[in-house]
Amino acid sequence: MTSRKYFLTPGPSELYFTVPDHMQAAMRDGIGSISHRSSQFQEIFSHTVNQLKQLLNVPENFQIAFTGSATEVWQLLIQNCTASQTYHLVNGSFSSRFYEFSSQLGRNAIKHEVPFGEGFDINAVDVPEGTEMICVTQNETSSGVMLPVEDIYTLREKYPEMLISVDAVSSVPYLDIDFSKIDSLFFSVQKGMGLPAGLGVWIFNERCIERCKQLTDAGKVIGAYHNIPELVKNSEKSQTQATPNVIGIYILGKVAEDMLRKGLETIRQETAYKASTLYGLLENHPKFKPFVVNPAHRSKTVIVADLLEGLTSDKVINAMAEHGLEIGKGYGQHKATQVRIANFPTSSKEIIFKLADLLEKL
Amino acid sequence: MTSRKYFLTPGPSELYFTVPDHMQAAMRDGIGSISHRSSQFQEIFSHTVNQLKQLLNVPENFQIAFTGSATEVWQLLIQNCTASQTYHLVNGSFSSRFYEFSSQLGRNAIKHEVPFGEGFDINAVDVPEGTEMICVTQNETSSGVMLPVEDIYTLREKYPEMLISVDAVSSVPYLDIDFSKIDSLFFSVQKGMGLPAGLGVWIFNERCIERCKQLTDAGKVIGAYHNIPELVKNSEKSQTQATPNVIGIYILGKVAEDMLRKGLETIRQETAYKASTLYGLLENHPKFKPFVVNPAHRSKTVIVADLLEGLTSDKVINAMAEHGLEIGKGYGQHKATQVRIANFPTSSKEIIFKLADLLEKL
Repeated sequence: MTSRKYFLTPGPSELYFTVPDHMQAAMRDGIGSISHRSSQFQEIFSHTVNQLKQLLNVPENFQIAFTGSATEVWQLLIQNCTASQTYHLVNGSFSSRFYEFSSQLGRNAIKHEVPFGEGFDINAVDVPEGTEMICVTQNETSSGVMLPVEDIYTLREKYPEMLISVDAVSSVPYLDIDFSKIDSLFFSVQKGMGLPAGLGVWIFNERCIERCKQLTDAGKVIGAYHNIPELVKNSEKSQTQATPNVIGIYILGKVAEDMLRKGLETIRQETAYKASTLYGLLENHPKFKPFVVNPAHRSKTVIVADLLEGLTSDKVINAMAEHGLEIGKGYGQHKATQVRIANFPTSSKEIIFKLADLLEKL
Repeated sequence: MTSRKYFLTPGPSELYFTVPDHMQAAMRDGIGSISHRSSQFQEIFSHTVNQLKQLLNVPENFQIAFTGSATEVWQLLIQNCTASQTYHLVNGSFSSRFYEFSSQLGRNAIKHEVPFGEGFDINAVDVPEGTEMICVTQNETSSGVMLPVEDIYTLREKYPEMLISVDAVSSVPYLDIDFSKIDSLFFSVQKGMGLPAGLGVWIFNERCIERCKQLTDAGKVIGAYHNIPELVKNSEKSQTQATPNVIGIYILGKVAEDMLRKGLETIRQETAYKASTLYGLLENHPKFKPFVVNPAHRSKTVIVADLLEGLTSDKVINAMAEHGLEIGKGYGQHKATQVRIANFPTSSKEIIFKLADLLEKL
């Protein structure tokens, strides 16, 4: 069949259902042509920032900045908030790459690593003195492991002087986190927000700004493109340093508004309900089991299944594709033996039930 | 009137006339949801690269990479291709900011500066020994000054061992340059290519790659995000390091294809013809004069007019806006006393004639 697929992949995923309409409006209203120094852009910028602050419950002492991707934010965090030592909780491909970025940028990057698919015993985490920033990946898109926010708060209590950075790439907006217990959070728009890729969102507080100032006062190089002083200076004018992805920023504000209208509590409840449907299936089906053993560490938004009895990911993916549903392969070496399913806000209960029915019959 | 404006601004500008259709196709075909590791994305990536190589006549020894903006490329060039000293021809805001980036990144940045609105006497340019990269802005979007390609070739002959980097942000695809006489060229898609902003294009040769290798071999930090080794490694697989602006890359390939179909020679002739219409008007109208005095240095794609007899940019801009045409203010301190007009491929002769008629009557 040639009809278009519905994307339940945890990379770029199905667009939030209002996106095509917003894109059409953007084309009609010339949003792709307006100057990024115009008052019209400033209104779009501040609307998006305000909607995001409401949606994610971001306090006043945090700035919101736009980047090209979440990957870019890894570099910005390391360059702007650290000079010597970073500490990383690593349990998958994305947390590992963040750790590698820090080494490549000349920092003493220290990792606490557990096997792929496992979460952390937070009491076993011992962050060495001299660490400037603790980097946690709240939702490992590669393995489907989730780090409970309480564990992040424990780190804050134990190491109040260190900055805490939270990679929430694939858990926003489901994630309910108390920003007063972290210093930075970032995500990309093509996952839970359901936008086309090409925009990262970086949220950081005054402690990050202060740390950056200490570095520049000490003559450290913090980068010239998208550094904290430039981001803050421009953000105060509701502008950006360079011409940004204007349409992306516009649609992000519109989708945040749509989600606020629906109610984030409703979205969270639906997400949890859809996740329990899928995990229930995986636990009771002879050919599947949830990859993440500890239920407390199972992501609600990226659900990873081990395939049993010789079932391959190709077989599962093709069987779903016949019915128009695209799900993801396992990550890296688990490509053939796992599948990954995105459980983002745009996917209705009906879509998830349809998927569950089809998986049930395999 | 409330009808939408037609953008003749040299920032983001009017979209190329085929863009809304391509955007609609992208929405319909789910391009916003496909994985950037899928074969479908690889086909899009290689199609876009191939079309751009044909359109701009890029030789085989050059790589094409995608970034978040052209501004990002300034940093990448400095970090990946230099360790100590850069040289900049500065005659406006963008060439000046490139120069400042180099200083901020800790390089010994040397500038040869001429007043805003003037071009360069290339024989007066004396690049000091130890310079690793000469940075030229082929088309200064802020002032409307153009650097003739012959002058760039003169630099190449005089300083064959130095890398030459060409900022062609607002002259692509009109610019006709011999890539064998430069090492790098970059642009952003929201000017002459007529796309929505949010994508930069960086073209670089094997000399840049080799120089980067020397730096990494010597233990220099070249950045972790979008550095040359990562860009090349991924590009060879028709992929990107991070999830990119997939729709932007898709539409860029489609527009390049559209322009190839029309014929770049035709586009160049039309551009030159429209430019001569506008410059002719400015020279003969009592209330205008071309800001750039030397005709050899007048940009064909960004046309800047000095306003005489007390005419202000607000007055001119509003008079045009009444007829649905949006033109730009002067840059920075020339905001009130100059206007800037984009003469990009998407603007037909009819639109430019209409503008010229309206300006004529002022």
